Amino acid sequence: MADTKLNSLLDRFARRDRLALARLITLVENRTAEVSTVMERIYAQSGHACIIGITGAPGAGKSTLVNRLIGKYRAQGKLVAVLAIDPSSPFSGGAVLGDRVRMTDHYKDAGVYIRSLSTRGHHGGLSRAAREIVKLLDAFGHDIIILETVGVGQTELSVMDLADTTVVVTVPEGGDGVQVMKAGLNEIADVFVVNKADRDGADRIKAELELSVHLRPAGGWRPPVLMTQASMDVGIDALVAQIERHHAYLNEHRDPARESERRAREFMEVLAGEIEERTARALRDGADGAEAIFADVRHGNLNPYSAARRIIEDRAILSDLLSDVRRRGEQE
Amino acid sequence: MADTKLNSLLDRFARRDRLALARLITLVENRTAEVSTVMERIYAQSGHACIIGITGAPGAGKSTLVNRLIGKYRAQGKLVAVLAIDPSSPFSGGAVLGDRVRMTDHYKDAGVYIRSLSTRGHHGGLSRAAREIVKLLDAFGHDIIILETVGVGQTELSVMDLADTTVVVTVPEGGDGVQVMKAGLNEIADVFVVNKADRDGADRIKAELELSVHLRPAGGWRPPVLMTQASMDVGIDALVAQIERHHAYLNEHRDPARESERRAREFMEVLAGEIEERTARALRDGADGAEAIFADVRHGNLNPYSAARRIIEDRAILSDLLSDVRRRGEQE
Repeated sequence: MADTKLNSLLDRFARRDRLALARLITLVENRTAEVSTVMERIYAQSGHACIIGITGAPGAGKSTLVNRLIGKYRAQGKLVAVLAIDPSSPFSGGAVLGDRVRMTDHYKDAGVYIRSLSTRGHHGGLSRAAREIVKLLDAFGHDIIILETVGVGQTELSVMDLADTTVVVTVPEGGDGVQVMKAGLNEIADVFVVNKADRDGADRIKAELELSVHLRPAGGWRPPVLMTQASMDVGIDALVAQIERHHAYLNEHRDPARESERRAREFMEVLAGEIEERTARALRDGADGAEAIFADVRHGNLNPYSAARRIIEDRAILSDLLSDVRRRGEQE
Repeated sequence: MADTKLNSLLDRFARRDRLALARLITLVENRTAEVSTVMERIYAQSGHACIIGITGAPGAGKSTLVNRLIGKYRAQGKLVAVLAIDPSSPFSGGAVLGDRVRMTDHYKDAGVYIRSLSTRGHHGGLSRAAREIVKLLDAFGHDIIILETVGVGQTELSVMDLADTTVVVTVPEGGDGVQVMKAGLNEIADVFVVNKADRDGADRIKAELELSVHLRPAGGWRPPVLMTQASMDVGIDALVAQIERHHAYLNEHRDPARESERRAREFMEVLAGEIEERTARALRDGADGAEAIFADVRHGNLNPYSAARRIIEDRAILSDLLSDVRRRGEQE
C-alpha cells in the first residue's frame, strides 16, 4: 500500500470512520508490512477503553451474556466493541451451526462495533493480532471492548491477558467446576458467572467456585461468584456492577512496577513479532545475504539451528534480512 | 552450564542414557541458552522415528488408547516414547483429578519413555518446545513417538503439525462429530477413531465422519474411520495397521517440493524463536545499546512499535542484543 493511501486511511480512522477501522483491522489480520506503522501512529490515542474478557467452555451462554452486556453499556451511552475469537461464536463461524438465531440484537447499532477473529491459520500469531486489534478499537474511541473467547487453549488464554477484567462463565452441568480448574481458567478469573442458574446444580457449582476463591492467597482481589440467566436478563446488572467494582479496584491499586513490567512484556512481544514477520517477508521475497543459507536449508544440507546461528551472528546478513525498506518500496 | 558439562551430557545422550535424555529435555523446557547448541549437535541423528499424533476432546479415551498402542509397538520390539501435552492427561497433571488409576501400564518398561509437557507458562513457545523435545526423542533412537494432545486450542493444533500421522479420537456422545468439525480437527485427521464404539450413536458418528471424508477433494489420502473399544483392546490392531498404511502412503508419495517447504517453515520457526529468546535474555540480563530505549518503554515514554523499529534499524544495537556470547560466558 502506498504511503498516501495509508495516510488517508489513518486520517479517516482519526475521524471515526468505521470503514477505515475495518480496513485497518484487515491489515492487521493479513499481517502486511504496514502494521507497525499503523500501530505507531494510533498508539498514543489508545489506553482509554475498559477491556472486558469473557471466557468459558462452549455452550456456557457467553454470546447471550455478551449481547446483554452490550445492551447495558449502550443504555449508559457508551461506545462498545466486541472482538470474538471463537470458531463456534455466532459472531464468527458459529452461524453455520444453527446459531444464526442468536445473532446479536445490536447488529445495526452504530454505537456497537462487532468483529470476529478466526483462530485458523494464525500459527501462534493470534494473540499478537488480537492485541493489535484491541489497540485499534481502543484508539478509535470505544469505551468498552469485550473480548470473547472459548477458554480452552493456551493461545485463547493468552488473549485473556489483554483484558482488564476477565469474566469466567460456567454452567451447572457435567462437573463444569472441575473443567474450569483443569483449563486453568480459575487462575485468570476476576469475576465468576454461573449462567443458566435456574438449572440443577447451580448452588453446588457456586459453592465450589467460592471455595476455590477462598483458597487464594489473602490480601488481593477476591473474585465474586455471580448467578445469571442471560437469556432472561437476570443478574446482568449485578455483573456490570462487579466489573465496575473491579475496574475501580485496579485504579486504586495501580502499581508502577507492574505497569512497567507489563510495558516491558508488551515491548518484547512486539519486538519479537516484528523481527519474525520481517524475516518471514524477507525469506519469501528474497534477501540477498541469506539466500545461500536458505537454499542449503531447503535442500536439507544444513540444519535449521546452525543456519539460524550463521544468520544471527553475521551483522550484514541480519541487517539485510530485517530491512523492510527496499522490499516495501518495490511493492508499491 | 559449562561447555564440558554440556559435552558430557551429550556424550551420555549418544550412549542412550535415559537420564541424559531427561536432563536435555529439561533444558529445552527451561529455554536455556544451550538449547540451540544441543539441537545443532543432535539434529543429524534425528529423522528415523515414526511420529504419531493422538488428539480429540477430553474424555474420548485417548490415554487408554495410547496405552494400548504402546503395548502393540512394544510387542513388535520397538522403542516407544510418549509426549503428553495436556493438562488433563494421566501422564501429566491429570493424576490430581483422580486419573491416577489410569496411569500407564508401561511405567517400568525401559523400552518406553513417557514425558509430559505442561501447557502452562509457555506463552506461545509450547509448540517450539514440543518440536525440540520430539527431535530429542527421535535422535535418542525411539522408533515410535506418540504425541498426545487435547485438540482444542490453536497451539495444541499446531503441535499436531509435528506428527507424520494424526489420529483424531471421538466418542459417540453429545454431538461429538460436530465438535470435531468445529475444532478444525477434521482437516488434520489422517485416521479417525470412534472410541467407546459399544455406546449408542457410534454408527451415526461413524457415518458422519465418513461423509466428511467423502467431501474431501479426490486423489489424496482418504482417512479411514475405525471403531475401537480401547479399554477392551478391541480395534487397536486395525488402528496400528492403518497407521502403518498411512506411513507407507507418505513414503510412496514423498514430494521434494513439500519436503523443501517443510524445512523452510521449520527454519523460519527456529530463526524467529532463536531471535526472540536471545532478545528476551538480553533485555533481562542487560544489553548496552538497547538499555536507554528499553527504559523509555518501561516508563511509558516510547511506544513499543517505535522502540522496536529503532532497535531493528540500528545494526550495532541489534547485533549487541542478539550476541549471546558475552552473557553466556558470564553465567558459567
